Amino acid sequence: MQLLSGFSTWSTEEKLGWVLDEWMKRSGADSCSGVREEMLSWMKSFWHVNAPTQEIFRNFSENNLSNFFLPYGVVPNFLLNDRMYIVPVVTEESSVVAALSKSAKFWAEHGGFHARVLGTEKLGQIHFYSRIPASEMQKVFDAALPALKEAAVPLLSRMKQRGGGITKIDLLDKTTEEPGYYQIRVGFTTADAMGANLINSVLEEMAQALKEFVGCETGSNVDIIMAILSNYTPNCLVESWVSCPALSLTKHTHLGERFVERFLKAVRIAEIDVGRAVTHNKGIYNGIDAVILATGNDFRAVEAQGHAYASSSPESPAGYRSLSKASVDEQGIFHFCLKIPLTLGTVGGITAVHPLAKFSLQLLGNPSAAELMQVVASVGLAQNFAAIQSLITTGIQQGHMRMHIYNMAKQLGASPEEILALRRAIGTDTVTHSRVQYILEEIRARRGKDP
Amino acid sequence: MQLLSGFSTWSTEEKLGWVLDEWMKRSGADSCSGVREEMLSWMKSFWHVNAPTQEIFRNFSENNLSNFFLPYGVVPNFLLNDRMYIVPVVTEESSVVAALSKSAKFWAEHGGFHARVLGTEKLGQIHFYSRIPASEMQKVFDAALPALKEAAVPLLSRMKQRGGGITKIDLLDKTTEEPGYYQIRVGFTTADAMGANLINSVLEEMAQALKEFVGCETGSNVDIIMAILSNYTPNCLVESWVSCPALSLTKHTHLGERFVERFLKAVRIAEIDVGRAVTHNKGIYNGIDAVILATGNDFRAVEAQGHAYASSSPESPAGYRSLSKASVDEQGIFHFCLKIPLTLGTVGGITAVHPLAKFSLQLLGNPSAAELMQVVASVGLAQNFAAIQSLITTGIQQGHMRMHIYNMAKQLGASPEEILALRRAIGTDTVTHSRVQYILEEIRARRGKDP
Repeated sequence: MQLLSGFSTWSTEEKLGWVLDEWMKRSGADSCSGVREEMLSWMKSFWHVNAPTQEIFRNFSENNLSNFFLPYGVVPNFLLNDRMYIVPVVTEESSVVAALSKSAKFWAEHGGFHARVLGTEKLGQIHFYSRIPASEMQKVFDAALPALKEAAVPLLSRMKQRGGGITKIDLLDKTTEEPGYYQIRVGFTTADAMGANLINSVLEEMAQALKEFVGCETGSNVDIIMAILSNYTPNCLVESWVSCPALSLTKHTHLGERFVERFLKAVRIAEIDVGRAVTHNKGIYNGIDAVILATGNDFRAVEAQGHAYASSSPESPAGYRSLSKASVDEQGIFHFCLKIPLTLGTVGGITAVHPLAKFSLQLLGNPSAAELMQVVASVGLAQNFAAIQSLITTGIQQGHMRMHIYNMAKQLGASPEEILALRRAIGTDTVTHSRVQYILEEIRARRGKDP
Repeated sequence: MQLLSGFSTWSTEEKLGWVLDEWMKRSGADSCSGVREEMLSWMKSFWHVNAPTQEIFRNFSENNLSNFFLPYGVVPNFLLNDRMYIVPVVTEESSVVAALSKSAKFWAEHGGFHARVLGTEKLGQIHFYSRIPASEMQKVFDAALPALKEAAVPLLSRMKQRGGGITKIDLLDKTTEEPGYYQIRVGFTTADAMGANLINSVLEEMAQALKEFVGCETGSNVDIIMAILSNYTPNCLVESWVSCPALSLTKHTHLGERFVERFLKAVRIAEIDVGRAVTHNKGIYNGIDAVILATGNDFRAVEAQGHAYASSSPESPAGYRSLSKASVDEQGIFHFCLKIPLTLGTVGGITAVHPLAKFSLQLLGNPSAAELMQVVASVGLAQNFAAIQSLITTGIQQGHMRMHIYNMAKQLGASPEEILALRRAIGTDTVTHSRVQYILEEIRARRGKDP
């Protein structure tokens, strides 16, 4: 089989040309017609009109051909810690922004969201194997510590100016689990940067220093397997909460007093059933990731740390559980809160390079990383509130499928006029794909009969 | 505090106008100059030039203002089950596509990726409370079962034609964990659709039928709390693997035989240390989510089910652990495999509505959902292989930071010529932000002195 060589060094035009040739073969498009030329200009229609701006996007990642569009929107009325935010959101999932907006407005009328940062420590790990027995390793490590710290100094000078640095350096003895395996765990604070690159660079320098020091001082080899940050960050934690008299909530829906009772049960179920807990938390991240994307942060890191925390935190000894909690206290006050790890940056990475990520941060008032943690966690809580509210009242489908009419109709080739007629005809009925198809056919049949 | 009302009903122009007014206040922009008008046309510069195409993006989500661009690229040379794929990828993280490309090419030369689907069952849950004692509930449920099945028939008719349907309906007694709480768990197969909307609609109809049946037949009330799909899908599972003589790998890097030994240790560490496991799996999803986005699938669902599986599967009784495994067998064959849950669709949702998602699926040869599961899992494995390879040889930073020079230089206002000079000056040295800044200043100083 002939493999393609040097593809990454080709120009974008050359890459596009090759990919379109392959696409022609795979999609069964007619190669005689002008399809290829049409496709070429179609792919380029997603490029930014301004060449230097397009160059920015082209350089984010390798083998770039075009841009993938995701809708960019906002959630107004987001009251957090007595400040009114307009929250930028990027999501392809219909009804997320609508749900967030509804939830934001309700809570803005009931005291708003509150949040605080519980910790900002990020972790790095140096994994190594050594024949030095566990009984002696701590002594060797203590002796090496100054050299490790020194190795990090040049890399950390800028970060120190911004108030960050190393918080701790510990040796972990893992030899009972795996013979010869030790770990050095380093704590970092990285101010307003996500800090991944800095942490990795520091760890690699420290690992080198450890290897050299132990080699020189003991004549024993330290086999560094890898040195890299950890995405498990239980000490980079933020908490968000809302509260109001339970009575205010009873007036909120047609369920009356049963609303609060059902809400507590819905959260309780997510605390004891893994099948529900995963979905419950997934909904939280529907909201969170929309802000993560809009501000140029890394949603894979945020998802990994969040779900791992749900399964391995001190608060979930029994396994994967809900990240949010709800209660009503003796004074009849309803409390709803979310505690999650979040490693975010408001400087560095693509936050300042992606034009709309930069705009997002400006719209949020150029927050610090700690402030952004509070916004993001509160958006997660808002989304969770909205999802549970839908689930325990009308069911998730009523609102969601209505949002979906457009996509379904579009797939069936409906015109804007037909979509309008469709929405009217469906009214408040249950929305299903079959029904949309049936009504659309009826609309078309009726129109066909018109004079 | 004055809240904004009816924002979602405003036109896009009106929304944009209001957001820009607020942005002016928050960003400290000078309101007297033409900044607002400039910003308005700047925001619109991200709209698609073709109005009907832009209308599609505008309708994906609510409160839409513009489009958020993410780079769209491809990974060539991806050999899977003896078929050569070009894999579409969307990621903002530099070096992911480069790493995937390198890994794909290596494995294409060593037998390629292999994958198989182990199951496609998705789960839905009806959560309810009842005073009917646990000893009697099973009997009541058995009697209600025909009514539940019947309620689903009209909704499932289309799905049945495509080979999907209900696989099981079970009652779970949860009363020992929570008094009065029961669950009905429904298994579904949904052919090539992700199926979320269908599953939710079926569950809501079934829940209604249950309530009515039990009310009529026993006079007892069933309190349906919620009925919704579960994102915990341990039976919607795919496995991907590569294998080759360990000897082939020893020639692969400068490490020689130590490469395989170190590779096995790196995976082993992710099996016993949660801090490493989370990062290890995060890397897998760096690859996976790039394809999920490019094909219009839901990455929050995929992340949630994957990380929950890492913490709660039969294979991880001890808590959160690595999703991949590596070994060398007695014949000296190296094996590396990944087993993950994946609920994907290749019809429905935005897969056919988003122009580039549609193109992605065509480029993949219009795969079934089961085939796409195999592609996505193999991309996860490819990414994991590349990440471990970097970590245990040169360290993650050497390659990654080099990719990052552009972003750092851009932030420092470097011109394309300066970026070129910068890359040359850095050569193979360690890349840090300080060094980029220092060298850039040197380049500029030198240029200043030029005649």
